[in-house]
Amino acid sequence: MTDSLNSISEKAGMPPGSLVHVGDVLKTESRITLIDYSAEHIEEQAVYAIEEILPYKDKATVTWVNIEGLKNIALIASIGNAFNIHPLVLEDILNTHQRPKFEEYEDYLYIVLKGLSVDSEELSVNYEQISIIVLDNLIFTFKEVEDDLFAPIIKRLKNGKGKIRNLGTDYMTYAILDMIVDQNFVLLETLDEILDSIEDELLTNPTAATLASIQRIKRELISIRRSVLPVRDMLNAIIRSDSALIHERVHIYLRDVYDHALRISESIESYRDILSGLMDIYVSSVSNKMNEIMKILTVFASIFIPLTFIAGIYGMNFEYMPELRWKWAYPVLWIAFITIPVVLLVYFRKKKWL
Amino acid sequence: MTDSLNSISEKAGMPPGSLVHVGDVLKTESRITLIDYSAEHIEEQAVYAIEEILPYKDKATVTWVNIEGLKNIALIASIGNAFNIHPLVLEDILNTHQRPKFEEYEDYLYIVLKGLSVDSEELSVNYEQISIIVLDNLIFTFKEVEDDLFAPIIKRLKNGKGKIRNLGTDYMTYAILDMIVDQNFVLLETLDEILDSIEDELLTNPTAATLASIQRIKRELISIRRSVLPVRDMLNAIIRSDSALIHERVHIYLRDVYDHALRISESIESYRDILSGLMDIYVSSVSNKMNEIMKILTVFASIFIPLTFIAGIYGMNFEYMPELRWKWAYPVLWIAFITIPVVLLVYFRKKKWL
Amino acid sequence: MTDSLNSISEKAGMPPGSLVHVGDVLKTESRITLIDYSAEHIEEQAVYAIEEILPYKDKATVTWVNIEGLKNIALIASIGNAFNIHPLVLEDILNTHQRPKFEEYEDYLYIVLKGLSVDSEELSVNYEQISIIVLDNLIFTFKEVEDDLFAPIIKRLKNGKGKIRNLGTDYMTYAILDMIVDQNFVLLETLDEILDSIEDELLTNPTAATLASIQRIKRELISIRRSVLPVRDMLNAIIRSDSALIHERVHIYLRDVYDHALRISESIESYRDILSGLMDIYVSSVSNKMNEIMKILTVFASIFIPLTFIAGIYGMNFEYMPELRWKWAYPVLWIAFITIPVVLLVYFRKKKWL
Amino acid sequence: MTDSLNSISEKAGMPPGSLVHVGDVLKTESRITLIDYSAEHIEEQAVYAIEEILPYKDKATVTWVNIEGLKNIALIASIGNAFNIHPLVLEDILNTHQRPKFEEYEDYLYIVLKGLSVDSEELSVNYEQISIIVLDNLIFTFKEVEDDLFAPIIKRLKNGKGKIRNLGTDYMTYAILDMIVDQNFVLLETLDEILDSIEDELLTNPTAATLASIQRIKRELISIRRSVLPVRDMLNAIIRSDSALIHERVHIYLRDVYDHALRISESIESYRDILSGLMDIYVSSVSNKMNEIMKILTVFASIFIPLTFIAGIYGMNFEYMPELRWKWAYPVLWIAFITIPVVLLVYFRKKKWL
Amino acid sequence: MTDSLNSISEKAGMPPGSLVHVGDVLKTESRITLIDYSAEHIEEQAVYAIEEILPYKDKATVTWVNIEGLKNIALIASIGNAFNIHPLVLEDILNTHQRPKFEEYEDYLYIVLKGLSVDSEELSVNYEQISIIVLDNLIFTFKEVEDDLFAPIIKRLKNGKGKIRNLGTDYMTYAILDMIVDQNFVLLETLDEILDSIEDELLTNPTAATLASIQRIKRELISIRRSVLPVRDMLNAIIRSDSALIHERVHIYLRDVYDHALRISESIESYRDILSGLMDIYVSSVSNKMNEIMKILTVFASIFIPLTFIAGIYGMNFEYMPELRWKWAYPVLWIAFITIPVVLLVYFRKKKWL
Repeated sequence: MTDSLNSISEKAGMPPGSLVHVGDVLKTESRITLIDYSAEHIEEQAVYAIEEILPYKDKATVTWVNIEGLKNIALIASIGNAFNIHPLVLEDILNTHQRPKFEEYEDYLYIVLKGLSVDSEELSVNYEQISIIVLDNLIFTFKEVEDDLFAPIIKRLKNGKGKIRNLGTDYMTYAILDMIVDQNFVLLETLDEILDSIEDELLTNPTAATLASIQRIKRELISIRRSVLPVRDMLNAIIRSDSALIHERVHIYLRDVYDHALRISESIESYRDILSGLMDIYVSSVSNKMNEIMKILTVFASIFIPLTFIAGIYGMNFEYMPELRWKWAYPVLWIAFITIPVVLLVYFRKKKWL
Repeated sequence: MTDSLNSISEKAGMPPGSLVHVGDVLKTESRITLIDYSAEHIEEQAVYAIEEILPYKDKATVTWVNIEGLKNIALIASIGNAFNIHPLVLEDILNTHQRPKFEEYEDYLYIVLKGLSVDSEELSVNYEQISIIVLDNLIFTFKEVEDDLFAPIIKRLKNGKGKIRNLGTDYMTYAILDMIVDQNFVLLETLDEILDSIEDELLTNPTAATLASIQRIKRELISIRRSVLPVRDMLNAIIRSDSALIHERVHIYLRDVYDHALRISESIESYRDILSGLMDIYVSSVSNKMNEIMKILTVFASIFIPLTFIAGIYGMNFEYMPELRWKWAYPVLWIAFITIPVVLLVYFRKKKWL
Repeated sequence: MTDSLNSISEKAGMPPGSLVHVGDVLKTESRITLIDYSAEHIEEQAVYAIEEILPYKDKATVTWVNIEGLKNIALIASIGNAFNIHPLVLEDILNTHQRPKFEEYEDYLYIVLKGLSVDSEELSVNYEQISIIVLDNLIFTFKEVEDDLFAPIIKRLKNGKGKIRNLGTDYMTYAILDMIVDQNFVLLETLDEILDSIEDELLTNPTAATLASIQRIKRELISIRRSVLPVRDMLNAIIRSDSALIHERVHIYLRDVYDHALRISESIESYRDILSGLMDIYVSSVSNKMNEIMKILTVFASIFIPLTFIAGIYGMNFEYMPELRWKWAYPVLWIAFITIPVVLLVYFRKKKWL
Repeated sequence: MTDSLNSISEKAGMPPGSLVHVGDVLKTESRITLIDYSAEHIEEQAVYAIEEILPYKDKATVTWVNIEGLKNIALIASIGNAFNIHPLVLEDILNTHQRPKFEEYEDYLYIVLKGLSVDSEELSVNYEQISIIVLDNLIFTFKEVEDDLFAPIIKRLKNGKGKIRNLGTDYMTYAILDMIVDQNFVLLETLDEILDSIEDELLTNPTAATLASIQRIKRELISIRRSVLPVRDMLNAIIRSDSALIHERVHIYLRDVYDHALRISESIESYRDILSGLMDIYVSSVSNKMNEIMKILTVFASIFIPLTFIAGIYGMNFEYMPELRWKWAYPVLWIAFITIPVVLLVYFRKKKWL
Repeated sequence: MTDSLNSISEKAGMPPGSLVHVGDVLKTESRITLIDYSAEHIEEQAVYAIEEILPYKDKATVTWVNIEGLKNIALIASIGNAFNIHPLVLEDILNTHQRPKFEEYEDYLYIVLKGLSVDSEELSVNYEQISIIVLDNLIFTFKEVEDDLFAPIIKRLKNGKGKIRNLGTDYMTYAILDMIVDQNFVLLETLDEILDSIEDELLTNPTAATLASIQRIKRELISIRRSVLPVRDMLNAIIRSDSALIHERVHIYLRDVYDHALRISESIESYRDILSGLMDIYVSSVSNKMNEIMKILTVFASIFIPLTFIAGIYGMNFEYMPELRWKWAYPVLWIAFITIPVVLLVYFRKKKWL
C-alpha cells in the first residue's frame, strides 16, 4: 500500500492534467493491438503510431484498440488529443491508483476498474488497472501489462458467431467487463481453499504462523474489498446511465455482470465473517493448549508433592520416631506411595478436572 | 462453496447465452409434469417433448409445467425458443448458483430462489435452485431434483376447493413461493434445536468439538443468510412491480409471504447474536476450567510445600539440634503437620480464594 | 422459540385462509365482552354468539367487542363473514406468531402487536398477541388470554369524563395501543433491576451462574427486541396513513404513543450495550480471580522452595561438611529461614508484583 | 434509570392529558420570572399568578416567561388554558422523561430537550428537562430547578446591545438553545479529563476499580447519548420547519447551534471508541500482570527445583555412595549450586523467556 | 482534545458574532499576501491594511488574499465589513474548532476544512484550520500559521501556463482544495509505515509499549477521521451546489478532488480494521508468551519433582530398608535419574504438549 500512497503524494503539487505515469513501473513496452470488425469482416493488426488509428475514427465498423503497458505517454497524449479526451481522464488512465469508477462525458464514457489475478500457490494478488474509453464506434482499453486476459474475447470475435460481431461498442464494453469481473471468481476460489487449509491447521496444530496467515489474509481481503466492492456500484451507475452510447438492448447483459459483481461482493463480506471466526478458533486453541500444559503440571505437582512430603517425614533425624524401627514400615510406605497417586487420579477424573 | 466458484470460474470466457448446466450435476433425468386447470376441470400428464406443451400456449386455462432435473438442455432451449424467453434467462435457469432475484420482461416474469431442505440429524442444508417463469396463462417451474416439494399444491389443485382453481398464474406463483418460503421454518426449527443442544453442552462439558460445532453452524448460517435474505427484497420487488401479470387481488397474498420472509430473516439475524453469545460462553468456560485446574495445583502446592520444608529442617544432620533429642518433638510435629493445612484451608476459604 | 417455528412449519402446505389456531393453546374459553358507548350512554354486556353483535353494526354509537381467548374459531369466522374481513386477516389473528404490523383495507384497519407482561421474580416474559380490527364505528380486539389488561380503559369509559366517550374508534384504538405500549415500561423496569443485581454480583462474586444469567437476559432481550422494535415503525405507519378511519385530531395522541415506543426501543438498544459491558466485566473478573490464585501459589512456592533447598543441603550425608559440626549453625540457619521470606516479601511488594 | 421507568409505568393507565408531575420531585417552589423587552425598553418582574402574564398576550413587545420548578401544576394548567396549549403538551412539560423533540402546532412551537450539567469532581451528570413554548411574541421556558443557566442571556438582554433586543421570539429561542447545547462542551471536557486520568491509571496500576470506572463511564455515556444525540435531529427539524414563527433570518443562527450539536455528537461517538480502547488496555494489562507473576514463579521454581533434587541425592542413606567420602565433594557441590542458577538465568534471558 | 473543548466552553454564554480567536493561540503575527492575476498579468504584494485590498473589489481580474495567522482580529472584522460577510462566518473563521463544512451565501461561499501535516518521526499530527471565502472575482484564504503550503500554487500561477491563470475563483478554489486534500496522502503514508513497524514489533517482541503505540495510533486515527471524513461530504455538497460562483467547467476538477477524498477516507477506514487486527495479534502474542513461560515451568517441575521424590525415599531413616545396603543400588538409581527425564521429554514431545 505504501507505494500507492508514496507515488500519489509525490505528485501532490503538480498542476492537474500533467501526464506522468504514477504507479509501479511494470517494465513492459506498450503493445497496441487494433481490431476492426463488423458482422461481415474482421481484421487485427499491431499498431505503433497514432496515425494508424486515425483512419478508423469515422468508419462505421467497430474498432477496438487495446493498449497494453502505459509507458508510451506520448501516444496516450496524442490519442487524447485526436479523440478529444479530457486531460484529467488521461491522467487517471496513467495514474494506476484509481478507485473503480464510471464517468460520462459528452462524446465518450470512461470506465476504470481493477483486474485481479492471483498466484495460486501463495495468496499474492496482482492488481492491474484497466481503463476503458467507449466512443460511438471505437473502444479503447488501457492495461498495465501485456497478458492474455482478453484472449477469449478475441477468439469469440474471430469465431464470428454470436452477438459480439453484430452489436456495437456497448456490447463489447459488456464483454470486457464480464471478463474482468468473472476473473474474481478464480480469486474467491483460491481464497476459499486457503481459508479451508487454515481452518484445518487451526484444529490440528495452531501456531503463531497460523495467526500470521490469518492476519495476512485479513489485510489482503481489506485491499481486495477496496478494489472489488465499488465495481458493483459502478456497474449500477452504467446501467442507470441514460447515455446514448449504451443501448437498451445491452442493459440485460450488464445486469448479468451486475449480478455477478453482487455475488462476488457478498462472498467477500462473508469471508470477513469467516475470518473473524477463524481468529476466534485461534484464540480458543491457544487457551486450550495452555489448559493442556497446566494439566500436566498439575498432575505431576499434585501427585508428587504430597509423596515427597511423606518421604521427607521419615528422613527426619529425631531420636524418638517409633516408625523407623518397625519392620514393615518401609513396605507399608511403598503401598502408600502407590495408592495415593491412584486415588488422586481417580478423584480428579471423577471431578472432571483432568 | 468451492464448487460454486469452481464451476462459475470454468465458465468464465464463454460467450453469454451459451447453455451449459453449471452446478453440481445431480444425477437425475428430467421429469416433466404438466397440469392444466380451470375452475371446472383439471388434467395432469407427464410430458416428454416440447410439442406436448405447445398446444397449451394459447389456451385460456392455466397451465403449469414443472420441470424437475436440468439435464435436458435441448428441451429447455426449445421451451425458450417457443415461448420467446431471453437466452440469459435460460442460462440463469441452468446455472444453479444464482442469487434470489426477480426480473420483469415484456411478456413474462422470471423469479429464481433457493429451496432449502435440511437433514434433521446432522445440520447439512441442501440448496436447490428453483426458477419460475410466469406467463399470462402458463407457468414454468424448473427444479434441480425430483422430489415432493410441490405435492401439497398439486393436492390442493386436485381437491378443487379454494381460490387456487379460480385464479390465474399469479396466484399459482404465490402458492409456489409460499411453499418454498415456508420450508425455511423447518430449517429454523432444526437450527433452534441444535443451538439449544450446543448451549447445554457448553454449560455442562465444553470441548474443542463444541467450538468446532459452533463454527460449523456459523459458516452454515452465513451461507443460509446469503440464500434467504435476498428473498425478502425479491418479494418486495414483486409486490411493488406494476407488471400486468401480477393482479392486485394477489398482492395481499404476496404480502403474506413477504411477512413470513421478514420473520425468517429476523430469526436468522437473531441466531447470529445467539451464536456470538455461545462463543462467549465457550471462551469463558475454558477460562473457568483453567481456574479450576489452577486451584487444585494451588491447594496442593500451598499446603505441602511448607510442610515439606518443615520435614526438611529436621532431616538436617547438624550435630547441635536440640529438638532432635526431645521426646515429644515428633508427635508435636505431627500436630503441626495436621493443623497447618487446616488453618491454611480455612484462611483461603475465608478470603474466597478457593 | 421452537414452538413458534414448530407450529408454523406444521401449517406449511395448507391453503391460505384455512382457519386453524396456530400457537400455544392457552387453555381458556373465549370470553367476549361488548361495550357500546356514546357521549350520553354506555352499556357493557357479555356476548356468546355473533347474532348479539350484529345489531350494533349500523348503530351510530361506538361499539367495542373484546374477544379474549382464540379457541372459538367458528365465532371468529362468523365475525369475519359478517364484517367482511379478509380470510388472511382472520388467519393472522389466529396464528399468534405475527410480527407487529398495520394493514389498511378498504373498510377497516388491521393492527397486530404483542402485549408483553413480565413475572417480576424471575425474568420470564409472557408474550400475548393482540389483534385490533378498526371499523367506522366498531372496534374488535382479539386477545390470547383473559386478563385485566384493558380494565383501566373500561374504567375510564364508565367514568364518562375525558375525550374517550366523545371520540370514535380511532381514539379508542389509540387508548388500546397506549395501554399495550406503556406495559413495556414495567418490563424495562424489571430488566433494569435484574441488570443492576447482576452487576453487583459481578463485582462481588462472579460465578458461572452469573454468566448463565447474562446469556439468558441476552436471549430474552433478542426476543423482546423482535416483538417491540417493529411497533415503532407500525405506529409511524398508522400516523402516516391517510385512511379515513383515523381522523387527524387523533394524530397528536398517536404521536405520543410513538414517542413512548421510541423511548422503549432506545432503552432496549442501550440494554444491549450494557449487557456487553457486563460480559466484559465477567471476563475480566475471571482473569482477576486467576491472578489472585496465581499470586497465592507464587508467594508460597517462591518463599518455601528456596528454604527447602537450604534444608536439603544440610540433610546431605557428606562426611566432610564442616558446618554440621558448628555449634551455632542451626540457630543461624533459623535466622536465615526467617529473614529470607521477609526480604522476598518486601521485595515483591516493592516491585508491585504482589 | 429505574426512577424514570418507575414513574412512567405508574402513570400507565391514566387518561392522556391528566396533569401530574412525573419525575423526580426536586423540592423547589416554582419561581416565575417575566421579562418584557423591545429594542427600546426592558422590564423584569417576578410573577405569582397567571393574571400577571395575561396583559402581555397581545402586546407587540417580546415577553419571556421563565418558569423554574414544576410543582405549581395549577399555574401551568392555567397557562395552557389561557394560551390554548394542547393538554398533551402540558403533560409532556410536566413529565420530565421526554426525548428531545420539536413539535409544530398551529399557533405555537413546542421544543423539549435536556440540559446536562456535570459535577466536576465525580462524574455525576444531572439531567434537567427544559421545555420551550414559542408563540408569536411570547416565549415560555419551563425548567425543573432554579439555577443561573439563563443568567448570561438575561445579562445580554439588559445590556441592550446586539441583535437580541431587536429580533423576536425566534432569535430568543436560538439564544436559549445555544446556551443549553453549549453547556455540553463543559460536560465533554470533564469526560475528557476523566478518560485521560483513567488511561494513566491503566498504564501505571490497573485495578478492578479501574474496570469499574470504565464501566461507570460507559453507562453514563449511554445515557448522555440518549439525551444529546436526538438534539441534532431536533435542531435539523426546526431549521427545515416552514413555521411562520421561525423567520429565515434566524436560520443561520440555528445552523450554528446545529453545527455545535453535530460536533458534540461526534465527540460522544469517538468517546465510545476510546472507551473500548481503554477496555482493551485493561484486559491486556491484566494479562501482562499475570505474565509477570508467572515469571517470578517460573524463575524460582526452575532454579531451585533442580538444586533441591541434587541436595536430595546426597541426602540418601545408601551405604555405597563413594561421593559421600570424597573430601572435596561438598565444596564442589557448592560450586554447582552457584553455577547452575547462573547458567539457567543466562539461558532464559538469551531465549527472551524472562 | 481538551483544549478544543476548553476554549469553546469558555466562550459559552457570549453573544453570537463576538469575534474572539478561539483556539490554540499559535504565536504568529498575521501575514497577508495579495495576488492579483489574469491570463495576461500577475502581481504579488504583502498587505498590511484593509485599504490595500479594497481597490481589487470591483476589478475584473482574479484576486487571491491569503491571510496567515488569525491574531489580527480587527483586520478580519474590517474584511467582513467591507465584503459583507456574515458575522457568524467571521466567528467560524476565528474559532479554529470547526467541522469541515460548506455554506452558500448570496454573494459568497464559505468553505472550512482542516489541513493535516505530520511529523514523520513521531506520529504527531498538526491540524490547521483553513477557511476559504469565494466571491465572484476575489478569494480569501485564512490559515492559522505561516507556512509554505500554498507555495506550489503560487509557483504555478507565476509560471503562467495551464488553466489556472485563465479560469476564475472557482478553479482557484479547486486548486486550493486539491492541495489540502492531497496533503493527506503524506499522512496516510506515514501511518502506513508506522503500522508496518508496529506489526514487525508485534511478531518479534511485543511489549506493553507496543500496546501503548497501538492505542495512541487508534486515538490519533479517531481524531484524523473526524477531520477528514466530513471533507468528502463537503466536496460532494460543493459539486451538487447550484451556486453561480461554481461554474460547470470546474465540476470535473472538483470531482477529481472528491475521488481523492473518497480514497483517503476508505484508507482511513481500512486502517481501523488493520489496527483491530494488530490488537488481536498483540493479545495473542501475550497469550503465546505466557504459554512459553508455562512450558518452561512445566518441563522443570514435571521432570525434577518425581526425581526429588525418589531421592527423598532413600533419604528416609528406616532401619529396615534393604536397598540401602545393596551394592549397585546407587548406580542403578543414577540410571533412573537419567532415563526418567529422557522418557518424559520424549513422551511430552510426542503428545505435542511441549
